Formats: sequence, C-alpha cells, structure tokens
Amino acid sequence: MGIIVQKFGGTSVADPNKIHNVANAVIKEKENGNDVVVVVSAMGHTTDYLIKLAKEVTKNPDSREMDMLLSTGEQVSIALLAMAIQSHGYKAISMNGQQVGIITECIHSKARIVDIKTEKLHKYIKEGNIIVVAGFQGVTPDGEITTLGRGGSDTSAVAIAAALNAERCDIYTDVEGVYATDPRIVPNIQKADVISYEEMLELARVGANVLHPRSVETAKQFNVPLRVRSSFKLDNLGTLIIGVENMEIYKPVAGVASDCSQVRILLSNLPDIPGTAAKVFGALAKNNISVDMIIQSLASNGTNSIAFTVNEEDLESAIDILDEVKQEVKAGEILIDKEIAKVSIVGAGMVDRPGIAADMFRSLAENNINIKMISTSEIKISCLVEKSNAKSAIKALCKEFELEAKEIAVVKGDLPDV
Amino acid sequence: MGIIVQKFGGTSVADPNKIHNVANAVIKEKENGNDVVVVVSAMGHTTDYLIKLAKEVTKNPDSREMDMLLSTGEQVSIALLAMAIQSHGYKAISMNGQQVGIITECIHSKARIVDIKTEKLHKYIKEGNIIVVAGFQGVTPDGEITTLGRGGSDTSAVAIAAALNAERCDIYTDVEGVYATDPRIVPNIQKADVISYEEMLELARVGANVLHPRSVETAKQFNVPLRVRSSFKLDNLGTLIIGVENMEIYKPVAGVASDCSQVRILLSNLPDIPGTAAKVFGALAKNNISVDMIIQSLASNGTNSIAFTVNEEDLESAIDILDEVKQEVKAGEILIDKEIAKVSIVGAGMVDRPGIAADMFRSLAENNINIKMISTSEIKISCLVEKSNAKSAIKALCKEFELEAKEIAVVKGDLPDV
Repeated sequence: MGIIVQKFGGTSVADPNKIHNVANAVIKEKENGNDVVVVVSAMGHTTDYLIKLAKEVTKNPDSREMDMLLSTGEQVSIALLAMAIQSHGYKAISMNGQQVGIITECIHSKARIVDIKTEKLHKYIKEGNIIVVAGFQGVTPDGEITTLGRGGSDTSAVAIAAALNAERCDIYTDVEGVYATDPRIVPNIQKADVISYEEMLELARVGANVLHPRSVETAKQFNVPLRVRSSFKLDNLGTLIIGVENMEIYKPVAGVASDCSQVRILLSNLPDIPGTAAKVFGALAKNNISVDMIIQSLASNGTNSIAFTVNEEDLESAIDILDEVKQEVKAGEILIDKEIAKVSIVGAGMVDRPGIAADMFRSLAENNINIKMISTSEIKISCLVEKSNAKSAIKALCKEFELEAKEIAVVKGDLPDV
Repeated sequence: MGIIVQKFGGTSVADPNKIHNVANAVIKEKENGNDVVVVVSAMGHTTDYLIKLAKEVTKNPDSREMDMLLSTGEQVSIALLAMAIQSHGYKAISMNGQQVGIITECIHSKARIVDIKTEKLHKYIKEGNIIVVAGFQGVTPDGEITTLGRGGSDTSAVAIAAALNAERCDIYTDVEGVYATDPRIVPNIQKADVISYEEMLELARVGANVLHPRSVETAKQFNVPLRVRSSFKLDNLGTLIIGVENMEIYKPVAGVASDCSQVRILLSNLPDIPGTAAKVFGALAKNNISVDMIIQSLASNGTNSIAFTVNEEDLESAIDILDEVKQEVKAGEILIDKEIAKVSIVGAGMVDRPGIAADMFRSLAENNINIKMISTSEIKISCLVEKSNAKSAIKALCKEFELEAKEIAVVKGDLPDV
C-alpha cells in the first residue's frame, strides 16, 4: 500500500459536523492500509469574510498583507481537522505551508509552486501520522507567505502527491465525478469512469468546472493519477483521470461541452493584402483580449472577411480597439453576434478516427442546427451555433456518441443558464 | 531617537475602525521621529470564538493543534493593522512569530521565550518600515508553532523591546495607568507617574490586574522601561515602570491592594514536635496548592496551631488533603474562615523607613479594624482583616499614606466585587 493524497474543499469543512465527515473519509482510507496526507481549504465562507474585513480597512489592500491574512483560513481548517481525526483515536498532525516547505515564487496572490520539501512529511508518515496540510498557501525561500490563486488547493494536493510519489490524488467535491456533459441539460448523462488529462483539460477549457486546469496540468506533468469523487458518497469511486497512454480503452468522444459566454465579431470587406490579420489580432493581444475561434475567408469580390469570438466581458474594449484599427486596415463594417454558443466534443480517441468530425456535422445537420464556425484541435472539435440551438445540439451529440443512458430524460431550465 | 515598541490588546483592534485608531497611535510615535515596532493581540473575541470551534470538534483538543489554531488570531490582526498603516501613506510590514524568530521552548499553550532573532527586524526597520508583530505566539527551533499563555502578548512586546534594546515599551490598555489602589473603592485615587518593577510586581500579585506579572518580570530582568497608557487618550503619558535604582524620588507607599479570594485555614492543637509544618505544607505542595500567609503559634498549653491562607478555589481539595494529614500529625480541629480579606501596602521606599508597618497597624486600629494575620516582604506588608472591613481599611490606608487627592469621594459598590 502506498501514499494517498486527499483534498477537501471549503464546503466540505464548513462546520464541525462536516469536519467530522471529512475525518471519517480520511480514516476510511487509512483503514484501507494506506498512508494518508489530506489537503484542506479554508472553512466555508472564511476567505470571503477575511476579504470583506480587509476591504473595510482599506480599498486597496497590499497583496503581501492579503496573503498573510488569507493564509490563516486554511490554518484554522487544518488544526480543526487534525483534532477531529485525533478524537476518533488516530494519530494526526497539521502542517501549514511554511512547515511543510511548499516553496513558491515570490508573487503574492498567485504564486506558483517551485519545490516541495518532503523530509518532514516522510518523518511524520513514518511515525504513523495522518498529515493534514493547508492548501492554497506556500512560502518563499525567504520566509514570505504566499497564496496560489485560483485552483490553488487542488494544485497544492497534486503537487504534494507528485513530490511524495503518491499512488493517487483524490479530489473530493460536491459532484460524483466528471460527466460527459452538464447533467442539467442531459440528466441521464454518463459519468466517466476513466478520462485522460488531455480530455479533462479540454473539457475544463470549454466550460466544465470540476477541476481547475492548473491542477490537471500539474497532474499531467508529473503523471499523478487523479480521482474526482464525492465527499458525500464515499463508496462511489468517481472519475479517474490518468495519462492517455495508460488508458486501456477509451471512447472516441469523452464529453460534450458548451460555452455561451462568447460573442462573435465579424470584420467585413477587408482588402486582401498581407498583414491585415496580424494588425487586427496584434492590437487585441496588446490589450490582453483573448480571441478564441478565428476564420478568415475570401469573398468572390476579392475582399476578405475575418470572424472571431471573444469573451462577452471583453466585448466593449474589443469594439473600442477595432474602431481604431478599422481605419488602418480599411475594413468595411464591424458586425457583432451575441446569440451564439460554442458546442464542443472532446475525446482522445478522435486522433485515430477521421470520421468523428463528419459524424458531428451530420448529427447537427439532421437536427436542423446550422454551423456558423468550426475550429479543431487534436482532441477537440468545436462548432459555433445559434444560442437557441445549443441545448438540442448537446443532446443530439450525446446521443450520437453514445454518452447517455438508455432514455433521454426531460431537460429542465433554459440553456443560456448553462 | 530610538526604537519604541508598542503593544495593543484585543479590544484595541476589535474592528476596522479601532484598527485605524491604533494605526494613528502608531503613526504618531513614528512622527515623533522614532522607529516603531507594534505588537498586537487577536481581534476582540476571536480567541474565544476559535476555542469554541475547537470544543465543538472535540472535548479535549490537543494542545499542539490548539496553538496552530489560536495563532491565526494574531496573524489576522497584524495583516489588517499593516494594511491600515499603509493606507495612511506609511511603510508597514507584518510578521508572525515564525517570521520574526520568536524562539520558545516546545511547551504548547504556555511556552516561554528563549530567544528573539533581530536580523529581519533590523533589516525592515532600516528600510523605513513600521513593523507589526503577532503577539502571544512563538516557534520552536524545530518550526512548531507555540503560544505563550496568560499575559503572552505583553510578554512578547517586552521581550522584543529587550532584544532590540528599545528605548521603551508602551503597553496600551483601557485604563490610564497604574493607580495606587482600585479607583472603584477610592475614586479620587492618584495615578502613579512612575513606579518601580518591584512595586508593580507586588501590586500585580496582590490583585492589581493592569499587567501580568510575567511581562513585568521580563521588563525587570532586561531593564526595559515600560509605560502603561490609554489607547483612547494618546496625550496621556500613563505610568512609567522602571527599575527602583533609576527612580529619583519615590513615596514610601506606592499602592494599596486588596485580595478577597483567599480563605483562612486553622489547624489547632498540634503537638509541638519538629516536622509537623513540613508534613502539612509538603502534602499541600504535592497537590499543587499554593499557600500564602502562614503563622505558627505556641499556645500556653504547649500545643501549636498553624494558620494559613489558600485561594478559595483550592479550598475543597485542601480540606481533603488535610483530613488525611490530620491523623498523621495528630491535629485537633480544622477551622475554616471564608470572611477574610488581605489588605497590602506596597512601596519600594519602605525598605529604609522602619515606621511604615507601625503606621499601617495604628491606622487600622484607629478605624477599629482588627488584624487577624500579618505577613511582610521587603517592599510589602499584608494584613488579614474581616472581609467587611476591607473597604474601610483601603480607604484608611490611602489616607494615611497620602495616596488620594484632597477629597475622598463616595465609594460605590460592595467590596467583595473588588
């Protein structure tokens, strides 16, 4: 038996009762014969409360002092969880980021981990302890307290698992695993038993919120098997995320995701001369606006049009920038389309199967769904459709690629909520 | 100009507004041209809240984990105070016990400071920072977080002042200084402008609550000038506490204190043979019961009686122990007197003035107050009186030794509250 790293989020440790539930999950893994290291976040709304306090003191709190402040949240959780485990008769010891030696860059509020010391972890494990480690925080070589930013606690857990060469890293959440699409749209959707890092990353990028891409990237880099599982159903094994090279069988399509937060911008009547696209996207990039799908097409009158999507919150500043660039590149009109949705299929298996894209397009056509734009990556195909068609597109694709159980249940809610 | 260490307690930093008040007091000292190191406690009721949380998790929380938990309280305060100081345009940096290097023994919940590293403190001071240090906490050479127990934050401040060779350590409280007796008994009592460590220690031991004896002992040991002053009246200089050798003038009696929490126990008809007292007090000491005043007297019939006082909360266990010892030492009766109060006068000046004790006894006699027991130390004389006489004893002694202003104001409240 090896070392298992477990990670529990803030809602799992929100009050003393829930902390005892977590203690039970930890002890269950210990009783399986494994050594256990648990990573926890701050209790429930603690972080929000601390941020509110800081904002009451000053509008622009210094990021070093914010890290000093926020890192206390996890330190409270680890002490209480260690006490809870001890109260069930097991040896436990808590460690904050400084005590473990979770070494980070000196960038406050969004530091990246550069090293994890394992000496004390191994010593405490050898002494029979369950170790409870504060997530989300680290320390610079100079002793400054840092925090890791979004997805921080998941990343702490994965990085510790990598450093300890752990057998597995279990991320406990409020869902039962990774689903092939949003269960609110296709209620009888299949839960994936196994999925690859690459697929998980693509699903995360196109709207699945289970894991922050950063923790998946780290797991992929160090080849740490990840398991996403429910804090409330401990017998449910959830979804295992591993390297595609370790998967014995996989479906051509692992999941379907939709993203309704994009807006399409069309620049028409551009002169067909070199450098136009570079000017347009260079100006956007300089202003930190990410562009997603891009299509350039030559019209029969010899002019170009360029269509691309941006996040809707970047729309206003994108228009301001394009109004300036428009003169320079001699574009005709700027057309905006807000009623769009990006629907994507993701699957490591599509690499070897050239027919998948065709199957996707045919399935959408059979359901009278018009495709406005297409983009592809090695393991992902995305189609831009009318927002009003997104829900039926997802359902059609789940059926096409056999991602659902036998019956399609009734869909509740409107898609734009997705 | 030198280094000033300031210490603010939990009520002074209880909310963002109060934290800004503290920031103003800190900045005022900085504007005086001094380098400032501020030591703060946890905000308001934070410590109580954290203890309650722990008790909800388990009845008997481990003391190591309690230290991990409680030390977060001060870490929140230092971050917020540093932010507040920065918001007024001054450079500030917070440091927890680990970051400073407040090295303690590895005794959780009541560690003693063994060393304070000054390298980083000096570095940050040199860079022009106001340094905000977490009180009450330290770290073992092995990196374990400890807390200092009662009077901890005051002791942190004094120890840091000693390590930095500071000009002064200012303890900000909710009173305006050290009074010659309880202002609730003698409302027109004088505030001392200067008092010696020794007097302060004796006053603290006999019931004055301004400073924990531990911080005064530390100040005395390292000869750190201490100032007790009000958080709310920054212009008031409070009371300066220094070594008696540095005092230019002092009164024979600096203060009058009363202690109503003692109970007198009398063992009568003891055979007059060696070793009896040793047996009685040995048994009590073995059970951690502190004995205060002791008088042994030989009766005319050739038997001894021993009278002594214990704290009322130790009374029950003291009686249990004495019931056992009684057989062995062949004592007659055990008599208990709960209606007693110890009234003490304290003053470094009484060393050279033999008449002070006589003045005390005469003053009490003139007020028809019977003295049941007497004990003396170099700078203190204590008399045991009836509890009902304690208030008038204090008033008489304040008058006798000229500790009050011209008029004696009306006394409010009953003495047993004192």
